Amino acid sequence: MTKAILAGSGMTPFGNLGERTGRELFASAGLDALEDAGLEPDDVDEVFYGNFVGTLAENQGHQGPIAAEALGTTAPSRRVESACASAGVAVRDAVRAVRSGESDVVVAGGMERMNNMGTAGATDGLARAADDLYEIRAGITFPAAYALMARAYFEAFGGDREDLAHIAVKNHEHALVNDHAHLQREITVEDALGAPEVAAPLGLYDACPISDGAAALVLTSPEYAAEHGLEASVAVTGSGHGGDTMALQDRASLAKTPATRDAAEQAYEEARIGPDDVDVVEVHDCFTIAEVLALEGLGLFSYGEGIGAARRGETTRDGSVPVNLSGGLKAKGHPVGATGAAQVLAIANLLEGSHPRADDVPDATVGVAHNAGGTVASATVHVLEVIE
Amino acid sequence: MTKAILAGSGMTPFGNLGERTGRELFASAGLDALEDAGLEPDDVDEVFYGNFVGTLAENQGHQGPIAAEALGTTAPSRRVESACASAGVAVRDAVRAVRSGESDVVVAGGMERMNNMGTAGATDGLARAADDLYEIRAGITFPAAYALMARAYFEAFGGDREDLAHIAVKNHEHALVNDHAHLQREITVEDALGAPEVAAPLGLYDACPISDGAAALVLTSPEYAAEHGLEASVAVTGSGHGGDTMALQDRASLAKTPATRDAAEQAYEEARIGPDDVDVVEVHDCFTIAEVLALEGLGLFSYGEGIGAARRGETTRDGSVPVNLSGGLKAKGHPVGATGAAQVLAIANLLEGSHPRADDVPDATVGVAHNAGGTVASATVHVLEVIE
Repeated sequence: MTKAILAGSGMTPFGNLGERTGRELFASAGLDALEDAGLEPDDVDEVFYGNFVGTLAENQGHQGPIAAEALGTTAPSRRVESACASAGVAVRDAVRAVRSGESDVVVAGGMERMNNMGTAGATDGLARAADDLYEIRAGITFPAAYALMARAYFEAFGGDREDLAHIAVKNHEHALVNDHAHLQREITVEDALGAPEVAAPLGLYDACPISDGAAALVLTSPEYAAEHGLEASVAVTGSGHGGDTMALQDRASLAKTPATRDAAEQAYEEARIGPDDVDVVEVHDCFTIAEVLALEGLGLFSYGEGIGAARRGETTRDGSVPVNLSGGLKAKGHPVGATGAAQVLAIANLLEGSHPRADDVPDATVGVAHNAGGTVASATVHVLEVIE
Repeated sequence: MTKAILAGSGMTPFGNLGERTGRELFASAGLDALEDAGLEPDDVDEVFYGNFVGTLAENQGHQGPIAAEALGTTAPSRRVESACASAGVAVRDAVRAVRSGESDVVVAGGMERMNNMGTAGATDGLARAADDLYEIRAGITFPAAYALMARAYFEAFGGDREDLAHIAVKNHEHALVNDHAHLQREITVEDALGAPEVAAPLGLYDACPISDGAAALVLTSPEYAAEHGLEASVAVTGSGHGGDTMALQDRASLAKTPATRDAAEQAYEEARIGPDDVDVVEVHDCFTIAEVLALEGLGLFSYGEGIGAARRGETTRDGSVPVNLSGGLKAKGHPVGATGAAQVLAIANLLEGSHPRADDVPDATVGVAHNAGGTVASATVHVLEVIE
């Protein structure tokens, strides 16, 4: 399978970005990515734009052409929407556009703006990532869906709130040096355990914040990069995508995420690697329990072993497999439609040594970015590798 | 360029479908398409699902997994959104999935449900296809945007309301035998000219209705079709995609649609045909003027010649290039997220002889489906050809 070269990347800070419009945010990330790649707007053949609730947040559908215009082009575009995995799927479809030989240069990324909707509006928007007919109308909230998964996990494999607290503490600590992170603040296990309960067993520090932000990647073929003398040291060598039932009630188990497993198997096979080859990982930790489910779905830990990984120090920045060195969704923030691209950017920066936490993984050559939609009814996995 | 075999297709009737949910509509279209292809849900590798305002109409984001489940699978999926071109872009990205060799069997289609939003809600939803910041907030409605394009066209090339009326009369007449059409009712030029004005120069009969409905296509590779003995007589031999500025104010001319021109050039080049080879066409006539803009963008008529084509009888069912034999968006209806797939289905059925208007084009071997988003800030063109 041909690889796709990551020629450039850019992102805005994540946080409550006030009155900055979605198009302004994507322009910032996208133009940075083009500059990083050494390319011009006219070089862009296609745009793959992830966004989840812009139809509500900015009364704006048809955001593909707006994203393209933000880059300074009228190249063909589309919005790709898979809830919290929107950008992950956008990256996947963009990788395909390059690998198929149909496009030379594509921009993949995304943007979300939710703070302008207020807390109730954002909560209402986020609920649309779950099944409205069979879950939301029955009274479940999105945090409650993950709380059910946490309870199912505890019952199947053991673990407790304190295990989850260690994940939050780790990701907050990782974000301390990341000036693009939404939450740059150290917390303790006691802070996490003492925080208000959101949906038992999940408390406030088990949940990621509601963030605004944008991220963009420039992908191209090895041939194009060579012909145009682009400086690039990282490539996407594997891309996988998995699915599952939308509603939790239809799943065999709430303690496992087969969509992640399927996506990982596909991505590993393409890259001809296995979980043991992975040096550094960004996973979708919208809630602390989601990090556990992801690590096990990715095959980095056996089922039942992921829950204690942070507590045992195996996923901290000095651990055997550092997880979410960017701070993860938990502390870096989670502008839904941008997250999947920001994860790929973080892994690339870690591999090429430009990430503020790159010194923690000086020998890393293989990284994985994992993005999940809703309660993991969608998942994407991308393998990135250092190239010569 | 490898072609993608159209192995099966299905659609619901278009119209005001009352309480039928989006997932129910797509299940109907999608399962018909799978049955038509002689394939099972487990054969589906990926789903590309077009939808525009389900986030508003059914409070449902993340519709990819719901669409997949409607087909009886948890295959990876995504929602593709490009306003009224959502399904056209979904088909394009699905064609790429097959041509790249990454997937054997993909389902591409879409669904829209808008009548349950009420007229005001649907109008509000449709406005999201235009630029909220620079157009909608300035007070323009979506019909008014097309009215501006009609005025600009008249000024640049001539033409009048009566020319447009002939387009409406033609498409209504075409739909008379199509029992899936929203409006099966003959109208006269006098009816059209005497109808209430919507946005001058456009009247009620210049606009398509607000429709609910779904359409689905099963695409596969020639190799897979041969290996599995699939009966298929039509292939997608060209796929093109164009873009333009979102807001009308940023365009050099409102009387031309370069997104359509670019998409057509790309699709023709892939299929190694030119406009003269095209036997039958479905174009995006959300308003009568849009049919004119499409025909000229497609190169089927010179600039300025498209406006009189219906009046001269050149695009009627006994004309030199029959246009919108299905009734078009005007009379067949326009469930936004389904339209692009329904157009491809119509062309395929015309070429293979199963369409109620197939007798009007008995010798047709090459057809074109043209789908546009918003005020043609996005456009896709697909060339379909009869295969042996």
